[in-house]
Amino acid sequence: MTVESKNLPVEKITELYEAGDLSAIKELLLTLHPTDIARMFEELERDQVVSLFRLLPKDKASDVFLELEDPLKEFLVSAISDRELVEIVDEMETDDATDVISELSHEDARKVLDGIKEKESIEVRKLLKYPEDTAGGKMQAELVSVGESATVKEAVQSIREKAKEITNISNVFVVDDEGKLVGTLSLDKLILADEDTPVREIMNTKPVKVTTDVDQEEVARMFRRHDLLSMPVVDKEGHLVGRITIDDVVDVIEEEIFEDFYRVASLSVEERPLDPPLRSIARRSPWLILNLGTAFVAASVVKLFEDAIASLVILAVLMPVVAGEGGNAAMQTVTVIVRGLALGELEIRSAWRVLYKEALVGLGNGIIVGSVAGLIAYLLGTNVMVGVLLFLSMTVNLFIAGLCGAVIPLVLKWLKADPALSSSIFVTTCTDVAGFFTFLGLGALFIKLGLL
Amino acid sequence: MTVESKNLPVEKITELYEAGDLSAIKELLLTLHPTDIARMFEELERDQVVSLFRLLPKDKASDVFLELEDPLKEFLVSAISDRELVEIVDEMETDDATDVISELSHEDARKVLDGIKEKESIEVRKLLKYPEDTAGGKMQAELVSVGESATVKEAVQSIREKAKEITNISNVFVVDDEGKLVGTLSLDKLILADEDTPVREIMNTKPVKVTTDVDQEEVARMFRRHDLLSMPVVDKEGHLVGRITIDDVVDVIEEEIFEDFYRVASLSVEERPLDPPLRSIARRSPWLILNLGTAFVAASVVKLFEDAIASLVILAVLMPVVAGEGGNAAMQTVTVIVRGLALGELEIRSAWRVLYKEALVGLGNGIIVGSVAGLIAYLLGTNVMVGVLLFLSMTVNLFIAGLCGAVIPLVLKWLKADPALSSSIFVTTCTDVAGFFTFLGLGALFIKLGLL
Repeated sequence: MTVESKNLPVEKITELYEAGDLSAIKELLLTLHPTDIARMFEELERDQVVSLFRLLPKDKASDVFLELEDPLKEFLVSAISDRELVEIVDEMETDDATDVISELSHEDARKVLDGIKEKESIEVRKLLKYPEDTAGGKMQAELVSVGESATVKEAVQSIREKAKEITNISNVFVVDDEGKLVGTLSLDKLILADEDTPVREIMNTKPVKVTTDVDQEEVARMFRRHDLLSMPVVDKEGHLVGRITIDDVVDVIEEEIFEDFYRVASLSVEERPLDPPLRSIARRSPWLILNLGTAFVAASVVKLFEDAIASLVILAVLMPVVAGEGGNAAMQTVTVIVRGLALGELEIRSAWRVLYKEALVGLGNGIIVGSVAGLIAYLLGTNVMVGVLLFLSMTVNLFIAGLCGAVIPLVLKWLKADPALSSSIFVTTCTDVAGFFTFLGLGALFIKLGLL
Repeated sequence: MTVESKNLPVEKITELYEAGDLSAIKELLLTLHPTDIARMFEELERDQVVSLFRLLPKDKASDVFLELEDPLKEFLVSAISDRELVEIVDEMETDDATDVISELSHEDARKVLDGIKEKESIEVRKLLKYPEDTAGGKMQAELVSVGESATVKEAVQSIREKAKEITNISNVFVVDDEGKLVGTLSLDKLILADEDTPVREIMNTKPVKVTTDVDQEEVARMFRRHDLLSMPVVDKEGHLVGRITIDDVVDVIEEEIFEDFYRVASLSVEERPLDPPLRSIARRSPWLILNLGTAFVAASVVKLFEDAIASLVILAVLMPVVAGEGGNAAMQTVTVIVRGLALGELEIRSAWRVLYKEALVGLGNGIIVGSVAGLIAYLLGTNVMVGVLLFLSMTVNLFIAGLCGAVIPLVLKWLKADPALSSSIFVTTCTDVAGFFTFLGLGALFIKLGLL
């Protein structure tokens, strides 16, 4: 997915900034969407960002802050005063406020919690207790609820009272005397009902709901299955404690998919393109060192066949072709399987079927690619038996690539680990070892048999 | 993202099927969610699927059909009668009906279009004209609209009339006498207004809207930026022609991210885990043959240094370590950049900054990993100069890996191509060539200088 870069007035702003015309900048900023301002801030000098940030009205500043990348957020928190931070957090909904406060130092968090409105502070303190990747961590305390004896008119009155502080109201939640959820009522039902109708009579009495401890992936799945716009969150006893809205779920879906993508490539999920270099080095080098271990395993296979290589150097020339091709074929298999498991298109119960299929595909592609490779080698002037050797070893290696590419994520899944976890490292080790072993092993055999 | 497999009653169904107890199966199917039935169908024998599918009431059959994977959809279309297909399509909303009909043969499509209700048929014929990945292709014709002189009471009356056939009503669209969009009105605004208020007075007069030709990625981006639940679609003259709802957008977001994932691994975006093997072979082998071409380029670099390898076989043993490590480092860089460009965290204008950063990260990781590799080689008993050679060549290669890993997707993006397109093939070619060249080239130099 690519996002077209809209023309942001970065140069214009820099020009006005250098001319010291802050009021013109302010006017310009007010015409821009918070997302665009945030994207522009990422491009500007940090001192300049602080000055511009202070020009924004508090509600807009709050929206812009939420759209910034973590490093710039951290910088702003350190650059602005405690009072300014409190004012910005005060503008946020409780779920966003919780996310921001959970990233602060213990001391800063306390200052902000003491500074913001008491009602919001109490809610945020509750929300802070839930792990970030659960329904509790994703929910917000802002919602419209009515007692089960309420009428449609009273429900509308409740919406009226909350309409200013809550966006995206799509449901009214109905609770009993103890605050336990007994039903939900969508706005389109509400709008069609007579105002004296008790909500009890028209509410959905079996609403889809989650408890606070449910994983965010499961929450996303429920939203998709039932085409929901919002969902109530309850505690273990069934008391209504919050709601999750579809816009938060969209973020979860995006986040989770890219996590798979990152894990396949052995990356920390926190990495961002413009992280400071030292941070990236610290995050990536452990994986590369792990990969080094596996690379030496593959090298030790080559070492077994030193004599064969010494007597026929063309083996060293062509062995990376066999191993590399296996690596690519295996990554195709891994990608298809990781995606299938992630989207639920593939179940662990179909493991044997997909394994059989991928082994067949590997064999088929091995025969095709091996033939082409053998032919190319022959046309380039090598001994015809080198071509045969390439054909045989690529057929075997792509077959093994299909097997490994399927087995590794499926076994990880079966072990309840993430199927994407470092698949690329494990899988390429597998195809390197198999590729070197088959190509050099068969080569040594051919030499022994006098075929080469 | 992983989806836990719920216990589907596959065995129970198979048992009942073998006992011929269709009415018990029907009862069981009625208790299941369409998504679950669809997942179960993917597991069953195809003959069985047809029998079970026919047990479902038409509206549920329609929902189940939409959740099936393409191969099973195609099979069902061929297995059921034209009349059955018409009945199922008749139950769908226009956007889904359009998707289904667009996949049919010309003849089948005509039969279905002639068979379904005339009003739906006219709408679907219109929708079929729009490319699938545009706002026109994603929109549905079902919506609630009122004239600009309408009152709140009349708007509620319009909702009442449409409520049965339309789900997820979250907005009423307001049009002028010519059918041009002049505003939108959300249900929460509507519910709070007095019933005699003209909609004109409370509507949003600057709603976010798209024209039919806008790409689906841009549509998804607009939903996210503005936290929308639905969005009106207009033609070039501004006439209201349809609406897009958030649930369709969630599918687009998922689809687009996985497309990137697939493109990096050189896969056709249509591939699914349980495709027939021959289809997978046909789809994957062209990419593997392309990769073969680039692999021979890398092999030709090795060939340049045959003499060095013949005199010092350890070079052949260790060269895959240098190249492989470069490949992994480059894939880390590619993944971070493809993700950043996709999510808009990275703009093409920051290209130089990210290039500089990735080159630095590559250099840093090269020094770290090269040192470890050199040390391991030395501890394994190779000549100390082989360790030095490993250190130097890995430092250079990981530096180049950082550069290539960043340059290739950024250049693709700059050329307005997909930055993810086959990045893995191009990037590993780059690191293979660079790895072999630096390691073997320096090795040959060391030999010439008498250091090895």
